[in-house]
Amino acid sequence: MARDNDAMKVGMLGTGTVGQTIASRLAELGHEVVMGSRAAANPRAREWAAAHPGARAGSFADAAGHGELVVNATAGIASLAALEAAGAARLASKVLLDVANPLDFSGGMPPVLTVVNRDSLGEQIQRGYPAARVVKALNTVNSEVMVHPELVPGGHTVFVAGDDPAAKRVVAGLLGEFGWPAASILDLGGIRAARGMEMYLPLWLSMMGALGTARFNIQVVRG
Amino acid sequence: MARDNDAMKVGMLGTGTVGQTIASRLAELGHEVVMGSRAAANPRAREWAAAHPGARAGSFADAAGHGELVVNATAGIASLAALEAAGAARLASKVLLDVANPLDFSGGMPPVLTVVNRDSLGEQIQRGYPAARVVKALNTVNSEVMVHPELVPGGHTVFVAGDDPAAKRVVAGLLGEFGWPAASILDLGGIRAARGMEMYLPLWLSMMGALGTARFNIQVVRG
Repeated sequence: MARDNDAMKVGMLGTGTVGQTIASRLAELGHEVVMGSRAAANPRAREWAAAHPGARAGSFADAAGHGELVVNATAGIASLAALEAAGAARLASKVLLDVANPLDFSGGMPPVLTVVNRDSLGEQIQRGYPAARVVKALNTVNSEVMVHPELVPGGHTVFVAGDDPAAKRVVAGLLGEFGWPAASILDLGGIRAARGMEMYLPLWLSMMGALGTARFNIQVVRG
Repeated sequence: MARDNDAMKVGMLGTGTVGQTIASRLAELGHEVVMGSRAAANPRAREWAAAHPGARAGSFADAAGHGELVVNATAGIASLAALEAAGAARLASKVLLDVANPLDFSGGMPPVLTVVNRDSLGEQIQRGYPAARVVKALNTVNSEVMVHPELVPGGHTVFVAGDDPAAKRVVAGLLGEFGWPAASILDLGGIRAARGMEMYLPLWLSMMGALGTARFNIQVVRG
């Protein structure tokens, strides 16, 4: 798709449902996406790229090297390895949008959070890649809702956290393109707030069970 | 205050802000409250009881023995000791409303959850007192909002979890008396859902910081 000059080069790390859903929306919006995976010949990534003119598939390093914005949509327990493969030099100065949750499903349902309380995956990534500008966002909703918030009626909230205000503005702009009204974005402060955003997942999973759908969200209402 | 025959005998465990706020609202609604504390001569409990005609102060055992409904409003890290002092026999068959959060503030802010992932305080209590009918509720909002939900405008959600449906109906009735519309109550299922309700606290604390007030809540919005 042709697009005016605010098109962004985006590196998508991860080829699963979340990565594909976000990458497809980005491509639809005219951004130039390279989808990266551990094996550069990942069939899912190649198939996805073939279906999206202008998009490409490659390694984690290819995706990170391409992107001004890099999205971590890998499984939370694989994220640090994926970023290591991407390489610190290719992540330096980039806006790194982290949508992952550090959930371990290996022990069955419900999954357990592998990082809690005084640390979070978002902080681990920021510490590991200090020259990257990490923003945690979107991890509190299902991938469909991430990129089509209108699927949930009325007002509802998306959180952002990160240490770099300019990087948060880039992400807020992207959220706006996805359809999130500016008033729905709640900035929780520095990347440390990723702790609460990630520890919310067990409640999200309980709600999904009680509601019988993943198509829901929470609205923060102030007194 | 005189009250018709649906007045309940309530044992309140805990004399802090949460215990006093709930106890005062219960007394105002005509329920017969005994506020229990570790030391039966707790000055805060005695002062509270003196200000509420018909209410009494006593030990944890006094409160538990009195109540058809027992409310655990102690600090989460002190809850198991408080219930041990109350005594299993006095808790047997009682509806035990657990509003506590297992937060340890001893290491400074933010506090850490002492129970996570595959267990929760609510479950610990139900396991420790299998003859009690534990219902987790109200731990996700500030004490003012617990008993005056109209302080937050519009619709917003209160969660309940517990293994005994009849006990959850008793708690739902009480929530209704506090002012929670029936449609605002989201039943998450068995007491195991206390995990998510408790692990939500770090996000609640981040939101309180970002919003600059504890007078807020979340509304669950379904797509």
